[in-house]
Amino acid sequence: MDLVQEQPVKGDILIEGEKIAAIGVNLDAEHADTIEGGGMLAMPGLINAHQHTPMSLLRGFSDDLKLMDWLERKMLPAEARMTPDDIYWGALLSMAEMIRSGTTAFADMYIHMDEIARAVQETGMRAALTRGLVFHEDDGGKRMTEALDLIRRWDGAAEGRITAMLGPHSPYLCPPEPLREVISLAEAEDIPVHIHLAETKEEVAIIRQKYGMTPTQYLYHYGLFEKCHVLLAHAVHLNRRDMGLLRGMRGGVSHNPVSNLKLGCGIAPVTEMRKAGITVGLGTDGAGSATTLDMFQEIRAAAWLQKADYGDPALLPAVEALRMATEGSAKLLNLEGKTGTLKVGAKADLILIDLGKPHLQPVHHAVSLLAYSAVGADVDTTIVNGRILMRNRRLLTIDEERLIHEAAGRAKRIVEGI
Amino acid sequence: MDLVQEQPVKGDILIEGEKIAAIGVNLDAEHADTIEGGGMLAMPGLINAHQHTPMSLLRGFSDDLKLMDWLERKMLPAEARMTPDDIYWGALLSMAEMIRSGTTAFADMYIHMDEIARAVQETGMRAALTRGLVFHEDDGGKRMTEALDLIRRWDGAAEGRITAMLGPHSPYLCPPEPLREVISLAEAEDIPVHIHLAETKEEVAIIRQKYGMTPTQYLYHYGLFEKCHVLLAHAVHLNRRDMGLLRGMRGGVSHNPVSNLKLGCGIAPVTEMRKAGITVGLGTDGAGSATTLDMFQEIRAAAWLQKADYGDPALLPAVEALRMATEGSAKLLNLEGKTGTLKVGAKADLILIDLGKPHLQPVHHAVSLLAYSAVGADVDTTIVNGRILMRNRRLLTIDEERLIHEAAGRAKRIVEGI
Repeated sequence: MDLVQEQPVKGDILIEGEKIAAIGVNLDAEHADTIEGGGMLAMPGLINAHQHTPMSLLRGFSDDLKLMDWLERKMLPAEARMTPDDIYWGALLSMAEMIRSGTTAFADMYIHMDEIARAVQETGMRAALTRGLVFHEDDGGKRMTEALDLIRRWDGAAEGRITAMLGPHSPYLCPPEPLREVISLAEAEDIPVHIHLAETKEEVAIIRQKYGMTPTQYLYHYGLFEKCHVLLAHAVHLNRRDMGLLRGMRGGVSHNPVSNLKLGCGIAPVTEMRKAGITVGLGTDGAGSATTLDMFQEIRAAAWLQKADYGDPALLPAVEALRMATEGSAKLLNLEGKTGTLKVGAKADLILIDLGKPHLQPVHHAVSLLAYSAVGADVDTTIVNGRILMRNRRLLTIDEERLIHEAAGRAKRIVEGI
Repeated sequence: MDLVQEQPVKGDILIEGEKIAAIGVNLDAEHADTIEGGGMLAMPGLINAHQHTPMSLLRGFSDDLKLMDWLERKMLPAEARMTPDDIYWGALLSMAEMIRSGTTAFADMYIHMDEIARAVQETGMRAALTRGLVFHEDDGGKRMTEALDLIRRWDGAAEGRITAMLGPHSPYLCPPEPLREVISLAEAEDIPVHIHLAETKEEVAIIRQKYGMTPTQYLYHYGLFEKCHVLLAHAVHLNRRDMGLLRGMRGGVSHNPVSNLKLGCGIAPVTEMRKAGITVGLGTDGAGSATTLDMFQEIRAAAWLQKADYGDPALLPAVEALRMATEGSAKLLNLEGKTGTLKVGAKADLILIDLGKPHLQPVHHAVSLLAYSAVGADVDTTIVNGRILMRNRRLLTIDEERLIHEAAGRAKRIVEGI
């Protein structure tokens, strides 16, 4: 189903090279390999718009703690021990989970991006990669150099599956001078920007104290939304004026409901943002907070929260939540029309869902089942850029046994004594 | 793992007949059949404390609608068309999903309970069954007769797996006279009571207008909590005085977070109820509202909501949420100590989870993985009353292919033209 119509249509999808060449009934497939999709439903691959892939090595390591304990006593010391090799294996673990749960593309912000890019190249996924830039100390321009290296080496690489973004971490870790510098570079080179915004109430208070503005006003003040395509992660604490400043922005907001719930950050004003014309996509955030990267969980959490927040079960219906995780996230990654949609000419990034299971029967409305009952484990086949990455739930580009062994050993070493 | 310790222990579980006979290392299993559990984690089976099993036939039929549209335009007309045979097949569909997702016992409130009891008998599950009693019209005592029939025929049946409860539907569908009658019957026969309470704000307003009390005060006034073991479903809208009235009650509250979110009902005061000493278990409500019966989803939704509601990620930690779905629900079903726990002498109601998957690795804290990352599809083996109902994800007591065929055909007929 293409998520434009709300009911699925029976038919075939013809893939040629990297693209969807035809969609129709009884397509001539004489010279093609065929995947029998009887009893299955095809939909666009899910797109995770905000990730820190190597943090899968810290999955479940520090749940149920106060935010500052989580960050300072657990996450930061553990991350400080991660080697470039750990980062490669952690990224691979996240990619294995994503392919298994129907995610075909993601946006990532981390460090040692060469390692992550290498994993993307090998696994066959699509990714928008960002070197996270924190400017709390002067590093002599080292981080900026790495960010530029990422762009030079990897933007457009791996058959075009990799794109690069610039990643000033957040308003509170990016003072005016480097922020101005990043924005003018992004504008000059036409590179999208990926940044955290207003995840917690504390951030809003800090920025107000420092600059006398909201975090959104701070970014607006330096021209970010006017000059660049921007992927904003979280945007939990926006007021109406903030939303007005984002109206007409290129890009949009990655809503990460599970991470926001688990860390007690609040409920993002998704309904109001959408009313203000802001594109909202979906992401998981890192496995260090979200625990799992199953986007189906984000889809339903997003829908539940809007219904609960307003006491109105008609808000954010199934099909809209599914579109956020596909078309919406694609726009955030600056891949609008190229992925996140089942249409001729788009990249062949799609998944097959096996409906022949008790929890997906009967099929009154397929979109309801996808949004409210399906899980990653119901994905039978994952295809990215025309290449099959999983078929019949078997990963074809990752040695899963070795991966689990490496991840377990490295994770143990990293947290020892913390 | 037994959920008392927070870390799993390596070892064997010996089952004799219906019960757990021993737990330890290198148990002598000379004469026993053996399930190799290497790489798997054993935990108590999950217990769904509030269900309407036949509503699986209406899964996804009426999502994203206003509450009254959902109920009056969709659910009630569809339910009115369901035959006793439909009810059998709908119940069976729910049971197939429950066994597949690690649920070993459930509390059910519906009509035509003979059909549901028959399905429980066949599938091997454990269930506390209730004939739902609505008293908005005089039916000459027909419903009460059916409720008594259920108790006479089925209480203690199917090797003791079935127990019966009395089910006055809710304060708004149970006026004082029949309420008094049900309470004295429940007290005299020592039968637990299963009732909906304070699911919506509207219910609170209606009962206040009718009786000048809150719904909880109304039930308390007639001695329900003093005289009976009570399973309260929902309890979303309680004030502090209501919680004081429930202190010391036998039984407790089934929290159904997914249904409450999806229908926009609100967030139950779980943290405050638990502080007041009220046992809180977990349930899904019917698939007509919750869409899926996967209890892992309820476990994480429960934990998320308390963290989000108070802005405190330390609230309702993983192990507590898991205990709610096992020990907590067991107490609500009046099966405390018999099920919901891995200990010698308890019924052998347990599940094996396959941890050898990317989203369940690495294993820093198993309870975090179970609460925040596992899904029903990770359950490899389900055992109830010492009998294996699913092994290696294959159902052993249900013909799944026929079930899906029957469910699809019946569902289509039921909703035709609605």
